[in-house]
Amino acid sequence: MHFADTLAQAIDRCGAPACVGLDPVLEKIPRAALDATAREGGDDVEALGDFCIGVLHATRDAGVGVVKPQSACFERHGSRGFAQLERVVAEAHRLGLLVILDAKRGDIGVSAQHYAAWAFDHLDAHAVTVSPYLGPDAVEPLVRDGRGVFVLVRTSNPDSDAVQSPRLADGRSVSELMADTVRTLGEHRRGGRGLSDVGAVVGATKAVEAAALRERMPDQFFLVPGFGAQGGTIDDVRRMTREGARTPGELGVVVNASRSVIYAAPEPGEPWQSAVRSAAEALVRDLRDLC
Amino acid sequence: MHFADTLAQAIDRCGAPACVGLDPVLEKIPRAALDATAREGGDDVEALGDFCIGVLHATRDAGVGVVKPQSACFERHGSRGFAQLERVVAEAHRLGLLVILDAKRGDIGVSAQHYAAWAFDHLDAHAVTVSPYLGPDAVEPLVRDGRGVFVLVRTSNPDSDAVQSPRLADGRSVSELMADTVRTLGEHRRGGRGLSDVGAVVGATKAVEAAALRERMPDQFFLVPGFGAQGGTIDDVRRMTREGARTPGELGVVVNASRSVIYAAPEPGEPWQSAVRSAAEALVRDLRDLC
Repeated sequence: MHFADTLAQAIDRCGAPACVGLDPVLEKIPRAALDATAREGGDDVEALGDFCIGVLHATRDAGVGVVKPQSACFERHGSRGFAQLERVVAEAHRLGLLVILDAKRGDIGVSAQHYAAWAFDHLDAHAVTVSPYLGPDAVEPLVRDGRGVFVLVRTSNPDSDAVQSPRLADGRSVSELMADTVRTLGEHRRGGRGLSDVGAVVGATKAVEAAALRERMPDQFFLVPGFGAQGGTIDDVRRMTREGARTPGELGVVVNASRSVIYAAPEPGEPWQSAVRSAAEALVRDLRDLC
Repeated sequence: MHFADTLAQAIDRCGAPACVGLDPVLEKIPRAALDATAREGGDDVEALGDFCIGVLHATRDAGVGVVKPQSACFERHGSRGFAQLERVVAEAHRLGLLVILDAKRGDIGVSAQHYAAWAFDHLDAHAVTVSPYLGPDAVEPLVRDGRGVFVLVRTSNPDSDAVQSPRLADGRSVSELMADTVRTLGEHRRGGRGLSDVGAVVGATKAVEAAALRERMPDQFFLVPGFGAQGGTIDDVRRMTREGARTPGELGVVVNASRSVIYAAPEPGEPWQSAVRSAAEALVRDLRDLC
């Protein structure tokens, strides 16, 4: 099945374009989750995986169908952290969740093929994020039937302006140049809903520019970080949606929230999993306003 | 010790700015190397590590002091491939080789900190390559006393022109904008030889632009891929060197060759390790012409 159709279907089933980001950091994982792993004889690295699996179940129970593991959080623990990422992605598959691997890889030719093999053949992720500074040939090896890529176009961090905002001689900003590149890469790769499997990362905090980017990328899925904890609002996201969408999946956005969901503070006596589930449900409610 | 001084010292000891790239791919590893691992009961993933360790010894014997493992080659095999990368980097340390981890990571804030923890605390690499599309705050967490970063500025792949060559309204190309960013990041980070620990990746195949990039980055180490198999020549590299260098280490370049060294074809009856050593020695001889 075409990736953009799979993604649109997952969003329609949820009723909102929600994605839960898995950014597990030991210092922030609830005490109760660390203790549960320790009781089973597991160590801190295994606790990362156990915690994420708990989040996956809460996410599924809340009706959210898309998750975005942040590879860096696992990689910092080396090969054992990588093994936990493998475990988490496998469990997401078992639960029927769509996995966008946030790895921001970007390398040339054969190295890009290695990253494709890692993301798609080895981990079996549905999609991966890609950094485009090396140009289109760093992205192409990751474009594959049935899978998706999200190319960094406009990111939510403060310093991104230094690289992405400067104007070219032809009037476009660097991020607009990148948007045109992404559109070209995804031109003949549209699925049944009209959306391409070559998507873009566009931060929620850059809403003013997002409308212009949408004009340049009418058929791209936008993966939108920066919602919630990082300051992006529902009105910001609204500026990025496609016109004429008949269902939430056709809005062409998938909005990620990480910390505000996975580290939701439980009420006294409430299990942390229940707090995560409630926060994921609140995310869905908020995003239903888009539809 | 300041990273740029450590690197200059390794180059001076070798007598040429040579770096051997470790890009192990199963299809290219000599049959004899695969067989040797199999005899020990190891599988293909372990053969990757065994082969690289053989290359490390041949590299050291040839007098080359710097190696550049390509992370993607290991990552494609998942956590077990990652474990081989850990083994290879540990062996490089044991042999006194300086390790530039070619991972081209680039992410924001806390994720960039994770990658720094992975490269420096977990793997104990001396330096890492970084992709800069997200801006300076994606690079800064990887700048650390005693370690080095090499920021992608001008890469050797054909499509890089699409992103790195366009002219800005102020007359600079995108890669020149990046060069100025790198210079600023490394401004107050010079070591005893006057070279900064914030370096740049500049492809040997982009020699025409390299001289202009050297003017913008007078005190940066250039990590130069694309030499040999990819078409870059000694004259191309000469255009990138710093003026007034008193030793090879002060030329401000470190030139990488991967395939032409690690897959050097042995003479009939010659062990593959001997062919690798000869190819590494030939690389050193070629690069001595710079000095």
